[in-house]
Amino acid sequence: MTPWKAARPGDHIHAIDTPALVLDLDAFERNLARMAEALRGSGVRLRAHAKCHKTPEIALRQVALGAVGICCQKVSEAAVFVAAGIEDVLVTNQVMGETKLRHLAALARRARMGVLVDHPEQVQALAAVAQAEGVTLDVYVEVNVGANRCGVAPGEEAVRLAQQVAASLPLHFMGLHCYHGPAQHLRAPQDRAAAIAGAAEAARATRAAIEACGIAVERVTGAGTGSFLHERDSGVFNEIQAGSYVFMDRDYGDNQRGENDIPFEHALFVRTTVMSRATPERAVVDAGLKASSVDSGMPTVWQRSDLRYVKASDEHGVLATADAAAVALGDPLMLVPGHCDPTVNLYDDLVCVRGERVEALWPIAARGALL
Amino acid sequence: MTPWKAARPGDHIHAIDTPALVLDLDAFERNLARMAEALRGSGVRLRAHAKCHKTPEIALRQVALGAVGICCQKVSEAAVFVAAGIEDVLVTNQVMGETKLRHLAALARRARMGVLVDHPEQVQALAAVAQAEGVTLDVYVEVNVGANRCGVAPGEEAVRLAQQVAASLPLHFMGLHCYHGPAQHLRAPQDRAAAIAGAAEAARATRAAIEACGIAVERVTGAGTGSFLHERDSGVFNEIQAGSYVFMDRDYGDNQRGENDIPFEHALFVRTTVMSRATPERAVVDAGLKASSVDSGMPTVWQRSDLRYVKASDEHGVLATADAAAVALGDPLMLVPGHCDPTVNLYDDLVCVRGERVEALWPIAARGALL
Repeated sequence: MTPWKAARPGDHIHAIDTPALVLDLDAFERNLARMAEALRGSGVRLRAHAKCHKTPEIALRQVALGAVGICCQKVSEAAVFVAAGIEDVLVTNQVMGETKLRHLAALARRARMGVLVDHPEQVQALAAVAQAEGVTLDVYVEVNVGANRCGVAPGEEAVRLAQQVAASLPLHFMGLHCYHGPAQHLRAPQDRAAAIAGAAEAARATRAAIEACGIAVERVTGAGTGSFLHERDSGVFNEIQAGSYVFMDRDYGDNQRGENDIPFEHALFVRTTVMSRATPERAVVDAGLKASSVDSGMPTVWQRSDLRYVKASDEHGVLATADAAAVALGDPLMLVPGHCDPTVNLYDDLVCVRGERVEALWPIAARGALL
Repeated sequence: MTPWKAARPGDHIHAIDTPALVLDLDAFERNLARMAEALRGSGVRLRAHAKCHKTPEIALRQVALGAVGICCQKVSEAAVFVAAGIEDVLVTNQVMGETKLRHLAALARRARMGVLVDHPEQVQALAAVAQAEGVTLDVYVEVNVGANRCGVAPGEEAVRLAQQVAASLPLHFMGLHCYHGPAQHLRAPQDRAAAIAGAAEAARATRAAIEACGIAVERVTGAGTGSFLHERDSGVFNEIQAGSYVFMDRDYGDNQRGENDIPFEHALFVRTTVMSRATPERAVVDAGLKASSVDSGMPTVWQRSDLRYVKASDEHGVLATADAAAVALGDPLMLVPGHCDPTVNLYDDLVCVRGERVEALWPIAARGALL
């Protein structure tokens, strides 16, 4: 842990120690409102993904604005949010191992808990732990709708698993989890539309096959920030799991926007300082790959098209500068992270700013919750 | 923070919840001993880099085996180690900003503190804070010996900065910081040798030019795990900053070993579990890019050449498997991280194992110390 905080409420932004993870509250609140507006009257619910923010203060605001609950990617992550008062959590993952299963069941005493399966052994293990702990778990069959990661094939395989879940007394078969991750970052709007059309078709056919066995499919859940309007309008998805819309990042910003796409704004920044300016052609900032994750590429420098972040090492970021006068030693800069989720996971606090003032520090309480 | 620990001392390794960062103590201790042996009698000191482990328990063992102290990359990181009893810390970085400078000076009351400069303004700021706080700081001029990151050019520029430092009363000019980062991962041994020969030549010429002005150059410090034998034998470096040798990682493992290179072993692993096995051609493990940093490429699966880690998302790792029987749902596997430093920074604890037992949990106390 950092032995001191990057800022205190009331500080001027120029007093923020760097690197710091900064949330522009105005942009963030506009993003929250835009998402609520996009789903209003659609009959499609928002179950916001919390893996990107890991911050109870944000989840509580999402729920206050109408989200039915959240998604988490890990049981330990879910535990943090349940402790903070979130009452409905879907762990969008398969959960393996005695320890995790016991924790999951324990959480189901305090909140409505859902989980995914894509194998009969997982159903057996969930049924056993739910029975032993005297709880009910919502179970969703994960269907591979194009991501080629987890999930059974659409159709027959999914039907068999759904039947197994429906026949397991302490489990409640809720429906289908149909998330198409790679579609989120297809750059051309028509490619995203086509990918989700395929996913929706697979989901529809699978739902019909399960219903034909007399099993109700209450929920078809999925979607992310890059594609959710297509899921919303699909007629088969009735729940949206978008998460990154609260922050945006460089990777989402690189998507070409379709005609109807919502103009979510960059609200998350890494504030950094130029710490070396030994040559005219480069400036080195104090935010490297431990401050801004580079798994989806380099960050960009906010509102500074004359500066290019070209190389990250652990604690150094090298900026190429065309102009020797472009930036001076000690200058503050704002980076737009390449990928918001793993960047947030590097920090203990979000420094929330409004205009030129620090308004609050929000603990990223589920940071590092890997189990 | 993870609301529960991945393991407890005394646990069998099969009881470790995953993903967990596992240290093989036997291999780790052999690595410590090999480094001590490699420098014994050479007249070259070890100042181990702590940015890779961020773990006081490890730094204390390095010092017990002869290291003169440690390097840190950040002032807040240094603060964690000073609090743990390390008495000599070099911050291998430029330090900008009032807050950081005050913390640095405060640490100098409790430990010998060094810092780098590559600009006259940094020297002025350090002198001012040292004066105000009544402390002495060791100052090293960073010379660009080929990394093209921070650092002034060898020769005249370095001489001018050294003169400025030597003339600043509360500062103690210690010498030159000549680290060649990219050389560490040149795959061919002869390329690493050539890069460090060039760095040593630049260091030697710069040292001579400074000494010609009547300024003593007590220390020439640099080197990393990939190249340190060349710095050791250079006749100009008298301090080695290697860090990753304690752990190794996939990236260092990919270096072709030269004839005399020390056979450091992989001691750091991400323990993971197969959580999805929905198709014969892939298995999905519960360690994604929030569990094993992919900035230097994918991890490998330890002692399983039949399994290839092909894709990481936040909390999923996709393994390609040629053989449907190769791995089963629930199987534990060990990953060798692509890059140890940012991977360690994702965890709160090192789970230290000896053979099949968990011996200790060591807090990664400087995890997230970015300031």
